Amino acid sequence: MTKDEFILRQLSRTKRKKYEQYVVTKIIHLIDNHDVKFITQQYVTRPSGRALTDLYFPQLGLHVEVDEAHHLSNKEADSMREADIVEATGHKFLRVDAALSLEAIDKQIVEIVNEIKSQLTRKNIEPWDLEYEMSTEKYLGLGYVDADEDVAFKTIKDACNCFGHKYKGYQKAVAVFPEENTILWFPKAYPNSGWNNAISDDHEVITERSVDEDIAREHIEKHINPKFGKETRRVVFARVKGSLGDVLYRFRGVYELNLKKSNQDVGLIWERTAKRVSTIK
Amino acid sequence: MTKDEFILRQLSRTKRKKYEQYVVTKIIHLIDNHDVKFITQQYVTRPSGRALTDLYFPQLGLHVEVDEAHHLSNKEADSMREADIVEATGHKFLRVDAALSLEAIDKQIVEIVNEIKSQLTRKNIEPWDLEYEMSTEKYLGLGYVDADEDVAFKTIKDACNCFGHKYKGYQKAVAVFPEENTILWFPKAYPNSGWNNAISDDHEVITERSVDEDIAREHIEKHINPKFGKETRRVVFARVKGSLGDVLYRFRGVYELNLKKSNQDVGLIWERTAKRVSTIK
Repeated sequence: MTKDEFILRQLSRTKRKKYEQYVVTKIIHLIDNHDVKFITQQYVTRPSGRALTDLYFPQLGLHVEVDEAHHLSNKEADSMREADIVEATGHKFLRVDAALSLEAIDKQIVEIVNEIKSQLTRKNIEPWDLEYEMSTEKYLGLGYVDADEDVAFKTIKDACNCFGHKYKGYQKAVAVFPEENTILWFPKAYPNSGWNNAISDDHEVITERSVDEDIAREHIEKHINPKFGKETRRVVFARVKGSLGDVLYRFRGVYELNLKKSNQDVGLIWERTAKRVSTIK
Repeated sequence: MTKDEFILRQLSRTKRKKYEQYVVTKIIHLIDNHDVKFITQQYVTRPSGRALTDLYFPQLGLHVEVDEAHHLSNKEADSMREADIVEATGHKFLRVDAALSLEAIDKQIVEIVNEIKSQLTRKNIEPWDLEYEMSTEKYLGLGYVDADEDVAFKTIKDACNCFGHKYKGYQKAVAVFPEENTILWFPKAYPNSGWNNAISDDHEVITERSVDEDIAREHIEKHINPKFGKETRRVVFARVKGSLGDVLYRFRGVYELNLKKSNQDVGLIWERTAKRVSTIK
């Protein structure tokens, strides 16, 4: 997908609310700068739970929400489960009161656009590069990946190659990590045909259990029995649906197996111990 | 419908083309002036036939077309039949070449916006008043209606009251006109359940014939037989579907019955003799 295509598709996504398309397109067109990345309908996880914001500027950690009488539909709750959800730690939220006249809404839009333009100047943002932003190269250069910094890859191999691999087409859900007892894990962190997985709203806890009782028993035993249990740490990239329906592997952090909480009934309980991990050339 | 609602609905209409929504919303947001009326997806009749333009500014007689590899679908040809079609006489057409990059498209948009802003200043346009623009009051004040000047009413009575009537809720398809042999006519100028009517692409000729053979015979006889034939002139407001699905009565002109061409086979042939007619207080 080219950047032009990405911009067009973001702007043309189905409107959920009466004023959403007006506000979103006006903000983007008044910013009038294709070096600024934006995502429409971005799911975020906040201390207060998950939410869907109308417009998100990843380079600024800034969200815009159009406030109308509106509640999450069931359909949205469903799609949120698989969706790409970014961590809102430190993010700023700007709100547009859409219960007013278009003239009053326009005034709020101008304020938001001025705020964004001033942040772009102040923060000296790197121009948006659609290819580079999800590249192994970027994170090898940076020296780390951080769950609070919007890290996602298009393929499993791109993530693997940040940790010493030189894969060209790796697609398995686990891979070697060059530290003892640790693996790279690319789970579907939601119930799927093979696994009854789940991730907590704050991303701190992942539960893992096979749907197949035989596989579940063996898999859990292998992890919790001290005789076998050595793989107790996972560097996790969760498989999610990107905003345009594409698959992404989003970095969630480093998780360690909680041996006390894990058992045959609930499955394996993985708890986050770090949000940042170094990349390895 | 309020003006705010009208603007929102015009902007949020389904995109037919990949770049259409981007170009249309960007032009409107950069003009950034709610005194400027616009219609998206406006049907126009031109010397070369009918067409659908992406954006129309009635106050300026200006259309913007987004050029992509795109042909009229059958569905569009169908909906055009009933649609509100404005006469493009004297209208200007600006084109956006959408086969280029967004950057190159943006440059064309800026040129168009500058052209529109300069026309608005030069032509000293009246601010857009959604209520007033289709009011009897406006056309009684102006002293005439002209088929080239975007004249349409929301109801039959609003049109009737431009010609001496004081109706409060008139809804019939014909009404008295205060001149000899003349009536006001509000036809569905396309085939419908009662009538096989049609209007030519250039609006110069209306064909009228009942679907019911008995009614057709009597109706045609009554008009073409010199013994009865007195009602030979019609001031025509065609019933059309407005851009947002609302019904409009658009002024088409004054038509006279062509007695030579009219007969039992083809029906009544009405030919336009004037595009302008005086209103009557």
